[in-house]
Amino acid sequence: MRKRGQLASADVGRFRYEGLDRTLHERARLGVMASLLTSAEGRLFADLKRVCGLTDGNLSRHLEVLRKAGMVEVWKGFDNRRPQTLCRLSPMGRQRFRAYVRELQRVVRDATPPRRARHGHPTTLPAGWTKEG
Amino acid sequence: MRKRGQLASADVGRFRYEGLDRTLHERARLGVMASLLTSAEGRLFADLKRVCGLTDGNLSRHLEVLRKAGMVEVWKGFDNRRPQTLCRLSPMGRQRFRAYVRELQRVVRDATPPRRARHGHPTTLPAGWTKEG
Repeated sequence: MRKRGQLASADVGRFRYEGLDRTLHERARLGVMASLLTSAEGRLFADLKRVCGLTDGNLSRHLEVLRKAGMVEVWKGFDNRRPQTLCRLSPMGRQRFRAYVRELQRVVRDATPPRRARHGHPTTLPAGWTKEG
Repeated sequence: MRKRGQLASADVGRFRYEGLDRTLHERARLGVMASLLTSAEGRLFADLKRVCGLTDGNLSRHLEVLRKAGMVEVWKGFDNRRPQTLCRLSPMGRQRFRAYVRELQRVVRDATPPRRARHGHPTTLPAGWTKEG
């Protein structure tokens, strides 16, 4: 067992993942941002709803969070005389989402240890240790 | 602009990311799970707190969520006569976390488009469109 004193100072806060911005990390908003990232011209509300598997109400609510945070732009207009809502990333949203994704890559790297480090599960502890629950 | 009718059926729900289990996706718990993944023998509470950058109270609360979900085991015992708490992944937690990380990898792939797809930000919309907020 690793003793307290053996913790390398470089490891302090190593798994804090501060770059995982909470506005972007929420699962539904993550889907919205990812789906908008490759659509520079934006996506209509109805499309966005379908690709993200969200209800009208949920998508509206998450878009509002993202819009207020300056991550997306929401445009209203007409397309073939039908009222439409178009959503697209703001320049800042694009930049912030890319930084977020870089932090996600770090999580993936941390959680994909080299094969030699993939220990099996040890089943025994020294006598006297008890498991909670 | 992509019209509603043009959405490919394969794209429906494509950005739903259902594999992002909410128990594991929470940022602090993600850090706890990642830090335990490569420590088959577990980590002492005090170490875990430091590598994850959490307070005693926060770590306790998140460990309790993970323990109740069957993701981690919490063991109490003595090490050199001092009471200690040891945390480690359960076999199920290990399996579920790996599945979660595979979904994260999908997010990273989706959000890392090939260079040719990285459009600049379009600044104009057809006349009559207005931006909210």
